[in-house]
Amino acid sequence: MSEKTTRARIQAEPLKEFCEQVFQKLGLSEEDARITTDVLVTANLRGTDSHGVARMRRYVNGIRDGMMVPQPETKLVTETPVTASIDAGAGLGQPVSYRAMEKAIDKAKEHGAGFVTVRNSNHFGISGYYAMMALDHNCVGISMTNAAVLVTPTFGRDAMLGTNPIAVAAPADQEYPFVMDMATSTVPRGKLEVYDRLEKPIPSSWATDETGTPTTDARRVLDNFKQRVGGGLLPLGGAGELLGGHKGYGLALWVDVFCALLSGAAYADTVYPKTPDGKPLPSKIGHFFGAWRVDAFRPVDEFKAAMDDLQSRLKDTPKAEGQSRIYIHGEKEYEETESRSREGIPLNPKVVVDLRAIGEEIGVECNL
Amino acid sequence: MSEKTTRARIQAEPLKEFCEQVFQKLGLSEEDARITTDVLVTANLRGTDSHGVARMRRYVNGIRDGMMVPQPETKLVTETPVTASIDAGAGLGQPVSYRAMEKAIDKAKEHGAGFVTVRNSNHFGISGYYAMMALDHNCVGISMTNAAVLVTPTFGRDAMLGTNPIAVAAPADQEYPFVMDMATSTVPRGKLEVYDRLEKPIPSSWATDETGTPTTDARRVLDNFKQRVGGGLLPLGGAGELLGGHKGYGLALWVDVFCALLSGAAYADTVYPKTPDGKPLPSKIGHFFGAWRVDAFRPVDEFKAAMDDLQSRLKDTPKAEGQSRIYIHGEKEYEETESRSREGIPLNPKVVVDLRAIGEEIGVECNL
Repeated sequence: MSEKTTRARIQAEPLKEFCEQVFQKLGLSEEDARITTDVLVTANLRGTDSHGVARMRRYVNGIRDGMMVPQPETKLVTETPVTASIDAGAGLGQPVSYRAMEKAIDKAKEHGAGFVTVRNSNHFGISGYYAMMALDHNCVGISMTNAAVLVTPTFGRDAMLGTNPIAVAAPADQEYPFVMDMATSTVPRGKLEVYDRLEKPIPSSWATDETGTPTTDARRVLDNFKQRVGGGLLPLGGAGELLGGHKGYGLALWVDVFCALLSGAAYADTVYPKTPDGKPLPSKIGHFFGAWRVDAFRPVDEFKAAMDDLQSRLKDTPKAEGQSRIYIHGEKEYEETESRSREGIPLNPKVVVDLRAIGEEIGVECNL
Repeated sequence: MSEKTTRARIQAEPLKEFCEQVFQKLGLSEEDARITTDVLVTANLRGTDSHGVARMRRYVNGIRDGMMVPQPETKLVTETPVTASIDAGAGLGQPVSYRAMEKAIDKAKEHGAGFVTVRNSNHFGISGYYAMMALDHNCVGISMTNAAVLVTPTFGRDAMLGTNPIAVAAPADQEYPFVMDMATSTVPRGKLEVYDRLEKPIPSSWATDETGTPTTDARRVLDNFKQRVGGGLLPLGGAGELLGGHKGYGLALWVDVFCALLSGAAYADTVYPKTPDGKPLPSKIGHFFGAWRVDAFRPVDEFKAAMDDLQSRLKDTPKAEGQSRIYIHGEKEYEETESRSREGIPLNPKVVVDLRAIGEEIGVECNL
């Protein structure tokens, strides 16, 4: 569902130039500014605007408040030929995650598989970005992160888990790669904000009120988040066990185990701590990255041919009544990337206003 | 939901003895008979009766029909220090899966992580069994399998995917291990059978009719399966994208990519082939097994202490209105195992009758 607003189309390149300059002005190295920007603008190109440059304000404030360290001391805590664990030094999530995934891919190229956990990090953007890094190396990639607590466990009243996304990417030959990038909650918070603005009731599998009961009132859930009085987003499958909510809860918990418990990061309600007077501290979240080299199992050409065939089989199958197309995960985003790379990214006017304000505050010229 | 029937309580040991003898009589080696039996009876002990000895009939028929080879020639197709790919030679799924997971654990113990794919296999029982094998070695385990086609892709009319389960197990200290073992469909077919017998309408997130439209009529879905006229189980999240059905579909597809495409097994509607006159051939399904050694990332005692703490935090949090307990995945099954190990397994009388009939057919004394 999209909200209709007049949106300026802005090309990816000038948008990147502006964001890179902002990050450098805030103290990031040239390379870290480039990586962080690329993760954000890639989200916009793929159509995931909620994780794109609309988040610049949070990074600017995060760095200013000391929640995100612009030039962190990252530490390699453990390393074996196929595993590693990194302490991100409370830096931005993107640069450390990019390098962690590079390390996982290098290990996979040398040994068949590689896995790197990251602790003491911050928001890393879209999970799919890192999983997709594996594609150019004929590897299958995985990335996960835990996150600010918004999701209730099955039968629980209070949010104790993040939207904890899982992303998996696998290369194909003629078809687009398979790129699954999903929050383990039914929907992200942003979806409630959209329904709230449209004054539309939300489906009862999305969220609960302050008593832990499913509600159709998006505003109530959003207000409860602010006041921290209970309720939250529901795991994939909704409330209780009847529609499989315990499965979404299990997936979210799995992400916490891999991202936080294997890495030594914060988990459940210990993430995003604050000082006694409410000042945000580094979020202490963790990530998990992995890569498997396809030919450590099977010749790459056979694998890719089967990926094409699997996709064709699914897409060519009869459609449910009233439907005209079956999608493979990643397909919509690749098509959006092609169209937005050509025609520009349709930014929300409010985001453009905010980017200009950031430019003025920081002292970076903004021609957007 | 449980159906109330008078159920004889049978101890695990005599049940195992009987099944082992049946499998040996059908041509399995002593060890393969023991492994296959242990996977089945463990399912009963955990309360997953749908995957327990109630399936003996399918194995007996499968071996008799030549669909499952009792003494298969398994082949190690590829091997690197951290990966391997095995051809199961159309044998039963359990013995090859047990050995594949052992190999993954050995690799993890030596190198930090290990992954083994299996192709040309058959039904392997409960997915959780193999993931849990990692627990005694201070490893985190994963196991997945693709399966007979019962689940429709989002916007599709016909079943093109299996219930494709994902199981993940991670050890704790004082608490039970975390054991997630979930089909990626909202419910398995067995759940429809239960509702059909009770003449209860099913929730609309469970299944679709022959036009691909959600239905509350369990019998109609079950009949359609037999006649192969369309419709099927819905992925976790239900029909369409509103409640996240595309996420369950993505998880199922991921399982096909790892279990079939990495291994060279059959996938989507190419699994469970038949001869032109309808005789079942080997199902050609595939599995994926993996293990990560905890201390390749972080000291085991720290990890386990955090596992305990995460579980306590979740369980001690306020409950939703009308609820009294929050569960961790695996907890119910561990409690059930303790009670059934003590008091016996409450077998459905029909299953006992069938086991006796098998004993008579095969020539194995049955004192159950």
